[in-house]
Amino acid sequence: MLYRMTFTEAELAYLDSQPLGRLATQQPDGTLQVNPVGFAWNADTGTIDIGGFSMSRSRKYRNVAHNGRAALVVDDLWSTDPWRVRCLDIRGTAEAVPDPGTGGSGGSDPAVIRLRPTRVIGMAIEDPDVPPHEIRANARDV
Amino acid sequence: MLYRMTFTEAELAYLDSQPLGRLATQQPDGTLQVNPVGFAWNADTGTIDIGGFSMSRSRKYRNVAHNGRAALVVDDLWSTDPWRVRCLDIRGTAEAVPDPGTGGSGGSDPAVIRLRPTRVIGMAIEDPDVPPHEIRANARDV
Repeated sequence: MLYRMTFTEAELAYLDSQPLGRLATQQPDGTLQVNPVGFAWNADTGTIDIGGFSMSRSRKYRNVAHNGRAALVVDDLWSTDPWRVRCLDIRGTAEAVPDPGTGGSGGSDPAVIRLRPTRVIGMAIEDPDVPPHEIRANARDV
Repeated sequence: MLYRMTFTEAELAYLDSQPLGRLATQQPDGTLQVNPVGFAWNADTGTIDIGGFSMSRSRKYRNVAHNGRAALVVDDLWSTDPWRVRCLDIRGTAEAVPDPGTGGSGGSDPAVIRLRPTRVIGMAIEDPDVPPHEIRANARDV
């Protein structure tokens, strides 16, 4: 319950509806990378948990273990005419967790990247049919 | 012609088929962010050009102007059973270009982020129907 207010009800429903997010991490040499990932909101920890096949051996996992930097965007193209992208931009701090004790992603590798949101910016999530030029970002520290 | 080999023919067709990519940039304080973006391969410059409404005033544009760091992923969920994500992971160096002289994205703001690929990793682009466990990354420096 402590973390219930990180996301609005509409944002939680949106997160649940989208099969992929895109995770940015940073390599030790400074290079950025972005990868499509499966993810789930973890209400117990107030984090977004990102698992996957061979997660603990992945470069993104090692990046997070190295510097704790990550950001996730969950978005979709709601309409093309007018051009309308719904978007939930999530920034925060991340931790590489070898075994979260919850079975992780269900695969043989339980490791997850655990992203703790510190800033959330929602666009057109509450009402995707607002006219494009009336869309206001729902941005806040969480 | 100089840049023709940055991407394979299949990769160029894939880039052309996808309406959105996701761009990672880094804020001056080190925070990562990811944003959905429209993009186009620019064969004249050998770069991926990213424009958009109010680009020059956007945080991502200012991030790139500050440190030149960016990465783009273009991906889609090709099938859910088996789970299959096609993906083109593009890393490189980026430049904030106020006026590329080509009309930019066609909007009132001609500014673009220009990403010059230095490393490309393609997954399941050449043949999305390869069985999941036989997919091999097509990774190379370009």
